[in-house]
Amino acid sequence: MNEQCGNLRIAGCSFSVHPMSDQFIEHILESLEHVDTSKVWMETDDVTTTVRGRIEHVFDVTKAILLTIADRGVHVAFQGTYSIGCPGDSSGDAFMTESRERMNELNSISIDQKIAAKFSLYPMGGGDYMDTIYSQIERMEANGVDVSRAHYSTRLDGDTHSIFTGLEDVFRETEKSGSSHTVMTVTVSANSPSNKEDAS
Amino acid sequence: MNEQCGNLRIAGCSFSVHPMSDQFIEHILESLEHVDTSKVWMETDDVTTTVRGRIEHVFDVTKAILLTIADRGVHVAFQGTYSIGCPGDSSGDAFMTESRERMNELNSISIDQKIAAKFSLYPMGGGDYMDTIYSQIERMEANGVDVSRAHYSTRLDGDTHSIFTGLEDVFRETEKSGSSHTVMTVTVSANSPSNKEDAS
Repeated sequence: MNEQCGNLRIAGCSFSVHPMSDQFIEHILESLEHVDTSKVWMETDDVTTTVRGRIEHVFDVTKAILLTIADRGVHVAFQGTYSIGCPGDSSGDAFMTESRERMNELNSISIDQKIAAKFSLYPMGGGDYMDTIYSQIERMEANGVDVSRAHYSTRLDGDTHSIFTGLEDVFRETEKSGSSHTVMTVTVSANSPSNKEDAS
Repeated sequence: MNEQCGNLRIAGCSFSVHPMSDQFIEHILESLEHVDTSKVWMETDDVTTTVRGRIEHVFDVTKAILLTIADRGVHVAFQGTYSIGCPGDSSGDAFMTESRERMNELNSISIDQKIAAKFSLYPMGGGDYMDTIYSQIERMEANGVDVSRAHYSTRLDGDTHSIFTGLEDVFRETEKSGSSHTVMTVTVSANSPSNKEDAS
């Protein structure tokens, strides 16, 4: 219910990743082993995994988990809710002192994976963000991402790295523009059998 | 980006359902065949399915799709974003004239399924909703749902019908309280191997 609002600028993502395979447990466990989560606070239960920390590490870790599973060729869906401001708790605050260097980018960047993503942005606390968002979307298009309107969301088709960089920029700039509580939901599909172009 | 705000009170849900099985396509297609979607506008692509219509039919159809897949015993995850107000488009407006009778409740109610769910409510347009939400949550607890706090969300454990009735009430009452644009995200896990109590 978010009734306790802090003012620390810790970011977080509550996400779940779904490999559509009888071997879903192996895919998830091996991905979690493979990804360096040392710079984020992390907790997993039977519904979602939550990571908290600096914006760059929250995006670094979630992208790396998605990519390591997708790289195995399995059809995988990812759903994450990114949040900053009004966190409602203090778990992981100690991780805000971590350095900016991303722990997984070197491994992630070697994985070439096309995805289809839909995102929605909910700036709960004001801010002057619309122009910022449009310029970030233009930058994604310049990087080869295909942007289109979808119901209740914006659709992005293209390379995982270009899309995640764009999403992180949109999230970061919305917060900078003055929104005191920003929520962004992201749904991703990789290796979908119903999207031929997706089979990279 | 929702830049076009209408004032029609059409509700919608953009959702995806993930059976963690090599037979995920069969599970989804057979569920869609089984569920009566005649009272909602529906569109599916490779990332999500969107249903639009009256609140009761949006919840009736999404619950029925989740239940028919879970009833097969497969581990299934459901993620839905329910939205009302500021719809940004007019698809499905004609379905607002449908009668209130739920097309799937008779079949759904025969399925006894425990689930774990996490929900977050984002009232984007004001409203006096906190007391309303607390009373709805108390009602869910009275109906045997276990309510607990989770990171960025509220966790609900219990019977699918009690939980979906509670979620629909929270959504409906938030809208009634004056929020001009209400968004509610719901993540569900059924038959999870990591939750023994879940294996109903």
